[in-house]
Amino acid sequence: MPFRFEIEARDDKARAGRLFTPHGEVQTPVFMPVGTVATVKGVPQDTLEELGVQILLNNTYHLYLRPGVEMIRQLGGVQKFMSWEHPILTDSGGFQVFSLSDLRKVTEEGVTFRSHLDGSSHFFSPESAIAAQIGLGADIIMAFDECTEHPAEYARTQASMEMTLRWAARSKKYFEEHKQEVPWFSRGLKSPVENPHGVLRQGEVQTQALFGIVQGGMFPDLRRESAQRTVELDFSGYAIGGLSVGEPRPMTHEMVDAAIRFLPEDKPRYLMGVGTPEEIVHYVAQGVDMMDCVLPTRAARHGLLFTSEGRITIKNARYAGDDSPLDPNCGCKVCARYSRAYLRHLYASNELLAQVLNTIHNLAYYLDTMRRMREKILARTSATRT
Amino acid sequence: MPFRFEIEARDDKARAGRLFTPHGEVQTPVFMPVGTVATVKGVPQDTLEELGVQILLNNTYHLYLRPGVEMIRQLGGVQKFMSWEHPILTDSGGFQVFSLSDLRKVTEEGVTFRSHLDGSSHFFSPESAIAAQIGLGADIIMAFDECTEHPAEYARTQASMEMTLRWAARSKKYFEEHKQEVPWFSRGLKSPVENPHGVLRQGEVQTQALFGIVQGGMFPDLRRESAQRTVELDFSGYAIGGLSVGEPRPMTHEMVDAAIRFLPEDKPRYLMGVGTPEEIVHYVAQGVDMMDCVLPTRAARHGLLFTSEGRITIKNARYAGDDSPLDPNCGCKVCARYSRAYLRHLYASNELLAQVLNTIHNLAYYLDTMRRMREKILARTSATRT
Repeated sequence: MPFRFEIEARDDKARAGRLFTPHGEVQTPVFMPVGTVATVKGVPQDTLEELGVQILLNNTYHLYLRPGVEMIRQLGGVQKFMSWEHPILTDSGGFQVFSLSDLRKVTEEGVTFRSHLDGSSHFFSPESAIAAQIGLGADIIMAFDECTEHPAEYARTQASMEMTLRWAARSKKYFEEHKQEVPWFSRGLKSPVENPHGVLRQGEVQTQALFGIVQGGMFPDLRRESAQRTVELDFSGYAIGGLSVGEPRPMTHEMVDAAIRFLPEDKPRYLMGVGTPEEIVHYVAQGVDMMDCVLPTRAARHGLLFTSEGRITIKNARYAGDDSPLDPNCGCKVCARYSRAYLRHLYASNELLAQVLNTIHNLAYYLDTMRRMREKILARTSATRT
Repeated sequence: MPFRFEIEARDDKARAGRLFTPHGEVQTPVFMPVGTVATVKGVPQDTLEELGVQILLNNTYHLYLRPGVEMIRQLGGVQKFMSWEHPILTDSGGFQVFSLSDLRKVTEEGVTFRSHLDGSSHFFSPESAIAAQIGLGADIIMAFDECTEHPAEYARTQASMEMTLRWAARSKKYFEEHKQEVPWFSRGLKSPVENPHGVLRQGEVQTQALFGIVQGGMFPDLRRESAQRTVELDFSGYAIGGLSVGEPRPMTHEMVDAAIRFLPEDKPRYLMGVGTPEEIVHYVAQGVDMMDCVLPTRAARHGLLFTSEGRITIKNARYAGDDSPLDPNCGCKVCARYSRAYLRHLYASNELLAQVLNTIHNLAYYLDTMRRMREKILARTSATRT
């Protein structure tokens, strides 16, 4: 089906909606687990389905380096490649280029960088980053942006924002000219065999949705200007980038607010790279529809577990003889089956299964948090109507 | 229920049977995956159940060091500890003491060794090894033996075998005196509440089964003598140890044959630490009922996969664009869902999921091999009867 977003209910600024993508529907607000290199580290895809994961984020930078865009294109796109025939979003590669690679050189044309894997030299421009994302074939792709470093002066932040706006226009232009090259592209009025994901009406095409990214550093007026001018470029959705880069949380909230009030009501809003369980609740209340973060999965691999009773550092000796479940209020299959003592033993013994089970639980906790938020928004709206 | 073994069918020397243990029934011939430290590396317990794993092997040496016997005993035994309420077998610790630890010193009394984890000094005697296994509470436990090094001279092998026989007698004596100390012990004519695993008849007790271990190195007459004299000590089952230690395969087969013909027909026979898929088929034909081996799980973690079309080294570049399943004749969830290209990518990217999925497939391959052997024995017997 073509990309579409519908808002079902509102609770003050918070929204509950549905995102329709070529590979299925996503109920928002939604948390997107990070599957860096086309895998959520340690978790099989059927387990992600059991957890109720609706949409994954993959990193363009990582997939571009390994196994390469052309390989994934030939194999039918990243959904087929990883056997996840559900929605996927790819980031633009910009953030990884700025955070992981060495010796990057930024010009108006794009970014030259060295692979963190083998030191080989590469170049991303708005055009080549979009070409890579079209080849990978995620359902939602992102304009190429510069993630402004923090802290940064006003003039530097403004110049960076201006370049991101020019890159956004170039990203959109390239996308519009090449969007039919996505591996699973189809056009209206084809037969069901040629058009397997649903019947398209005449003139409709099934392709990717391109989102723009708001930058502007830690300056509210730049956030506002970036939002307004990105919206003028007309994207299918809008992300707020360049946050959670070291600034204090109240500043993050202020910047989200400064940008979000200038984003259109009827388009999805995606806050990139956040946050703790408490924070994602806050951002939903601010009107954000989509979030991603490595925190639940990365913390899990380091033995930091989120529970309804607070954070647990599972390696702590106090859990060695504790036969209670990790979180008595969690219904995930880890909490249903294993004790803290066993999880502590696995972690202390550096066992693979520690990383697998910890990741499953932390994802369950994040997904449950989002589901509860969504239910609350829907319930509040129903109550208001009666 | 009390421990019991029934033979259902025979095909020449091969047997199909049922092993009844306090934590459930095991259909033989059976392959026991190795769950070293109370986990099959990377595979959650529900996945092991889906695979049809009937019984796991845990290593006493590893659990003794971490998390410790007393901890597991307090938590109700290793089945409860790892949430695997199915049969478990523990080895005696002897093999790991001889292969993993440093500075071991063997005397008639037992073995002094240093932990491979922290260098701390420990002592295993037949009595303390059995005490550890009673504390862990596996359904089947093993007499403490000396795994004779290979190669070894006749006199050295004979002396080692004699000591293993004396240790077997001491193991049995200690076990008989302490078998009521297993965490889940119960006695006949108790109420169902006190006797949760089934109704025991008067005089029956629910406890562990102790197996003896045949040694004798690479000398058929010593294998025969070890078998005969171990059987005289009267165990619930008999293992053949000290094989697959570097000798050529025809010699392994000869030693198995030299021992197995002197083991009682009506008791289970367990060949320790073997083997490749081809070998386990051979040993079933020789009359072996139980096997364990780290090969499927360890090879999987190193990217060596067993398939109906032969071995696959998944890191090989030829699989990078191969969208066919790993093994077209395998029904496991890895072959049903993922391509060789994806598995190759995971392995080449050093991703956790490579180890998880590879292990699931290799275990499926071993378990399927055993199931087919069992069905063949049952079918042959039925055909003979009609």
